[in-house]
Formats: sequence, C-alpha cells, structure tokens
Amino acid sequence: MITHWKQTHEAGITYPEGFVASGVRCGLKTEGLDLALIVCDGPADAAGVFTTNLVQAACVRYSRHVVERGTARAILCNAGNANACNGERGDRDTIAMAEAAAGLLGVEPTSVLIASTGVIGHPMPMEKLEQGIPPAVDALDREGDTDMRVARAIMTTDLRPKMIGVRCGSDEWAGEITFGGVCKGSGMIAPNMATMLCFLTIDADVPHRFLQTALDEAVRLTFNRITVDGDTSTNDMALIMAAGAGDCRIAEPGPGLDDFTEALTRVCRYLAREVARDGEGATKLVEVRVTGAPTEGDAELVARTIAESPLVKTALFGCDPNWGRILAAAGRSGIAFDPRRATVIIGDQTVYAAGASAPFDRDAAHDYLCEPEVTLALDLASGPASAAIWTCDFSYDYVKINAEYHT
Amino acid sequence: MITHWKQTHEAGITYPEGFVASGVRCGLKTEGLDLALIVCDGPADAAGVFTTNLVQAACVRYSRHVVERGTARAILCNAGNANACNGERGDRDTIAMAEAAAGLLGVEPTSVLIASTGVIGHPMPMEKLEQGIPPAVDALDREGDTDMRVARAIMTTDLRPKMIGVRCGSDEWAGEITFGGVCKGSGMIAPNMATMLCFLTIDADVPHRFLQTALDEAVRLTFNRITVDGDTSTNDMALIMAAGAGDCRIAEPGPGLDDFTEALTRVCRYLAREVARDGEGATKLVEVRVTGAPTEGDAELVARTIAESPLVKTALFGCDPNWGRILAAAGRSGIAFDPRRATVIIGDQTVYAAGASAPFDRDAAHDYLCEPEVTLALDLASGPASAAIWTCDFSYDYVKINAEYHT
Repeated sequence: MITHWKQTHEAGITYPEGFVASGVRCGLKTEGLDLALIVCDGPADAAGVFTTNLVQAACVRYSRHVVERGTARAILCNAGNANACNGERGDRDTIAMAEAAAGLLGVEPTSVLIASTGVIGHPMPMEKLEQGIPPAVDALDREGDTDMRVARAIMTTDLRPKMIGVRCGSDEWAGEITFGGVCKGSGMIAPNMATMLCFLTIDADVPHRFLQTALDEAVRLTFNRITVDGDTSTNDMALIMAAGAGDCRIAEPGPGLDDFTEALTRVCRYLAREVARDGEGATKLVEVRVTGAPTEGDAELVARTIAESPLVKTALFGCDPNWGRILAAAGRSGIAFDPRRATVIIGDQTVYAAGASAPFDRDAAHDYLCEPEVTLALDLASGPASAAIWTCDFSYDYVKINAEYHT
Repeated sequence: MITHWKQTHEAGITYPEGFVASGVRCGLKTEGLDLALIVCDGPADAAGVFTTNLVQAACVRYSRHVVERGTARAILCNAGNANACNGERGDRDTIAMAEAAAGLLGVEPTSVLIASTGVIGHPMPMEKLEQGIPPAVDALDREGDTDMRVARAIMTTDLRPKMIGVRCGSDEWAGEITFGGVCKGSGMIAPNMATMLCFLTIDADVPHRFLQTALDEAVRLTFNRITVDGDTSTNDMALIMAAGAGDCRIAEPGPGLDDFTEALTRVCRYLAREVARDGEGATKLVEVRVTGAPTEGDAELVARTIAESPLVKTALFGCDPNWGRILAAAGRSGIAFDPRRATVIIGDQTVYAAGASAPFDRDAAHDYLCEPEVTLALDLASGPASAAIWTCDFSYDYVKINAEYHT
C-alpha cells in the first residue's frame, strides 16, 4: 500500500538523485528553447512505450532499439522538427544526433535515447543541432530553473509547461522513491506538429523488465486514455530511466512492484490530464466516465467514442447539457447495451434515465459545464466494468490553430 | 449494361408515374415547411435501410416492421422533432401519426412508413401533427413545385434541398425505369437535429426482396461512404417504393437486376455527395480515394479514418496540402501497409512518395484545395482493392453551429 505521497510542480525531471538536465535554444522553433538533454550519472535501467501509428518517425524506430537493450544514459529531445517521413536521411540524422551527444558525454551512442517533435516531412537542419548540442551538454545541471527549462524546451503548441516531482513511500518498499516527470502534447498535434512526449526519472533501482511492465500498465491507464482529436502521432513516446541511486530496489514481482506501478500510474495520470487540459484550443478538461459495461475494454471504447465525438465536444464548448449527443455517440460505438436501461449524468445531475429525458435543472447544468473541469458519466447497466477517458472541448481555436497553419 | 441516362434536378420524388406528394407547414420548425407526405397510387413494393445506432428513434423501429412486410402505400415525414429517446410515448406517437394519415388516405395504418428528424428527447407535439396531416393529404399532387416542397419539408439545418429525377435504360430491361429521389442531412446532425433521410421512388415493378438487395448494395456504396463528423444518428433511414406502374419488371436475379442496382447506386451517389457537400459548416466537397489496399473493407477503413480526422479536415478548410496528416491518419487506421511504399496525391500532384516529401508546386496545391470539389488520393501499394469516401472540411461554422445551439 502506498503510505505517503508528496507532490510538487515546482520541480520535474531532475527531482530524483542521479540526474542532471538542460534546456537550450538551437533555433528549430521560431522562438524559445527547443533542445533538451536529460542525463543519468551512471547506466540507468530504461523502458519505453512508443506510438502505435504505422507511420513512425526515425527517432521512434531508433529509441525502441535502445530501450530493448535495457539501459540508457541520456535522452536528447528537440522540438520544432519531427524528423518523420524523411526517408533514410531521417534515420541517418537521428543516429548523428545520438553520436554528437554521446561523444561529448563520453558514453556509447547506443545509450542515448532520441525524441523529436515538430513538423513532419522536413529534413532535420543538422547544422543547428550540431551547434546546439555542445551548449546543452555544458549547461547540464539540477539547480535553479533547470527542470522548467526542460519542460519549455520540449513544447511545441503547448500553452503550459507540464511537470511533476513526487516523493512517496509504500509499506512494501525498503525506502522512499522519488519520481521526476515532464511531458508535452496538445493535439495529434498542432500545425503538423505531432507528438505526445513524456520523460520520467526515478532514483530507485528497478531492473529494465519490471520497469517496462510498470510503464506499460501506467501508460495504458493514463496516456492511452486521453484524446484531443483522435489523431495519434508519428512521434509519440514515453520513456523512463531508473538511476538506482536511492534506497529502494524493486527486483521481483509482488506487492512492492504493484505499489510501484500504482505510484507510476498516479504520476502519469497527472501528466496525462495536463495534456488533455492543454489540448489545442481547449477551454476545459473533460472526464468521460463509463460504468456498467461488460468489460473494461467495452467501457473504454464507449468512453472514447463519446470523448472523440465532434458533436459532444462542440456542445461542451457551448456548455450545453446535450445528453442526446452523448447517448447517440455511445450507441454507435459498437458495444451492445440497452439504451432504455442506460443513465446519463452531467456533474451531479441525472439528465437521462429509463429511456427518456430526466427532469433536471438546465441552468445549473449549463453553469456546471462552463467550469474548467467537468465530468460526464454514462451507466450502461450492462455489466461490472468501468473506464474513464480524459479529453477537452472543441472550440473555434482548434479550427483556427489547425487551419491557419500552412506547411 | 446501362445504355442511356437522363438526369434532372428540377424534379424529384414524384418524377416516376404512380406517385403523388405534398410538403406543408405544421409548425414543428420555427419557420418553413416541415411535414412531407409521399403516396403511391397502389400497394408499392418497399425496401429500407436503417441506422445501425443502438439508440434508435421510434420511427426507425416502426418503419423497419413496415418494410419487413414488403409493401407500403405512403411515407409521412416530419422535420423539427426526431421523436427519439421519448420512451413508450414515442412509440405511441409514431403509431398515431401513421393512423392519422392512413385514415385520411383510406389505407391500412401498417402501410404508412414514418420518418422523423429534429431534436432528440422532446416529446412530439401531436396536436401540431393532427392539424398538419389533413392539409398534407389535401395537397397531394405531382404538379408544379410539389417535389421541391417535399425536399424543403424534410430539411433541418440543411442549406440546400437535394433531389434528383432520372430516366434510364438498359439492354437487359423490357423498358425504361424512372427514378425519383429526395434526401436531407448535414451532420449527425445539427443542434441535436439528427438524421440522414433518403426517400426514393421508381415506376418499375421490382418485388420487395430484389428491391431490398439492390438498396442494401446501393446504400453500402453511397450513403455508407459519406461522413461529416463520424456521428451516425438515431433516425437515419433510406426508403424506396416501387409503383410497378412502368413497362419494366425485374423479378429475378441476373444482369437486369445488376443494372438496376447500378442505376440505383448512381442515383444514391448523387444524393450522398450532395449531403457531404452540404455538411454543417462545409466549404467544399472532398473525395478521399484509397487504392492498393488488401481488401475493399481495408480501403474503406483507411479512407474513412482520413475523412474523419479533425486535423485533415481543418487543413482542408485552410487549403493546406498537409500530406503528413493524411499519412498519419492512415497509419493509425489499423490497416497494415508499408508507409515507405505509399503515395499521396492531392489533385493531380504527387506530394509524398518513396518514404519522403515529393517535390511539388505548393502554391498550385493550395489553389487546388480552395476549389469547391477536391480529391485526396492515397495508394497503399499493398493490394488490389480501392474505395472512396466523401466528406467535407471542418470550419469555424461547424463549431459555431454545434456549440451555439442550446437544447
């Protein structure tokens, strides 16, 4: 059982012992920081989860190979160019980035993870990276605004940096574990700017295969439960490095690993919700909760269908308690249920039950939907399983951001 | 083989011999015609295709039963109220509508098909229908602007009436066949205004089971290949009545039925494309054509995923030749293909090939995408099958129409 939990958003990726980082500008974005480097003092156990899109950026293919080896020393991430769909040149450029960082860090190139985010189909301007990587190595630190600079350096159209530091304990662990996390993402994404990226660090000693198992489960329940526009990107990845510097070692299955997975899931849930809240053009964070489904997969699919319905999302932008659209989206999800037994709840008001509209206070429902965080719940009354999906509303600004950009 | 084809948009549902119709106002919409009646001189063979949404309006459940009996005399359609999610009262009201029309027409209530479109979850104001049905019966005609009045009476947020009349021949038929068609639809749809409705008439004698087979196939290739926002409604239906009044009888499988199915598909394709063109907030009609897929189902799924991607649709609104979004949508469709062998073509320019951006004239591509009808093509180079999906772009007006409405 997790016995204590202290969470901060003033610190991030270097919060655990054993890590240094930097965020610098190398000129890939029109302004601001655009190159981040995260380095572990020694070989870190590493795990990763990557986009399921068949169209994968060079860095996704490359970093998957690094993760399969089980350990890593560093993550180098650029924003402004996704290095996706650039043919063999893209692969060569990713390797050149890893080699440049590895040379200066004095580590193996195959221990440097690479992540990229930005425009698709434009070759990486390598001269900018060659100039930017040495200052990034020189700036490695864990003091001052380092973590915030990392958070800003990986942003594209994100409006807000997203980071978390957690120190927590479990009665199953030998000591505390410290987590650091940073992520970005705000659509599939913006102006051809793809990508949800998440980087995590811990001080504990968790061997690669347990780290991978825990990350798989945490991502399944968090980053894979958010949707802004249904478009998965070519560059999505979540990476974790374990420094092994703390008191705690988790080297076998059992309650200790279970609590570690739960703690990791909590960290990822915070970051995932921040991504949904900062979705392109979003004015609110929306939780769609489906209960009474035959299986968890069924519940997730119904929740996802509702969360991705343009009609539901525009109604949420308009603060309209439009239960007809919620129910109609569920009805086309492909999951069997009896609409006459289902219930729709907006906030704390039941708005549809027993096959027809329920009497409810429309003004109160409207006011509730104007809040920055809202919950829609649908009970299918067809089984024991439930799932939640986090999303945002669909506003004029989503159209503006995505229509006005020219490749 | 179809040997000749004459098409008009000045005529519609009463173009074939054997039908009369009317469009009147009964006050369900805030303005304009909102009640349509289509009547066959005698018992017509009938067929129908209905929404696959689990949440189905009372009229869908009712009309499916009528169609299963094989013949019908009339279609009564109201716009402004979907009579969906109204519990048992909804079923009673639908039956009462059929009985009211049947009584005045002197036919069996079970021979009157009912269609409704409009707001979900509001009980049908039966007093308005009781006052409106007698004038609709009195106005039955096939002269003057009758067909246009029918087309207008079934509209909700549609901007344009949609109708077609066709006279065509085949070397497999004993004589010509005349088709009449009318339809509506412009989103799942608007302000909780659900529904794609299509009504078709023919003069030929085509028994119910062949009519149903032909309609199933025509709908599969046309109305099931359009998408405005991915939201299927609670009230969708396509109905056809065959008067048996013409020279032509199609009473066995074979080339004559095949040509009939092809002709019906052509009629439906025209109407389906008009629905996509008139999608909520649409500024253009978009054809997404996928070739080189393993199966037709695969091609359709890839095309649909592209056509429903908010990122692709907003790029189309912005006239941006954003092939990265097209390829990324295909990559998440779940269909296996090698992105490095795929080709993306916008209009007549290849914009992506051999794993990277192809050299193309960006200004010309932008100008092309500003046209009112555009084609995006993706060749997966993975098989022999192809499919097309028709859709529209995603504009500020889509958000406006769907967010500003309050239930």
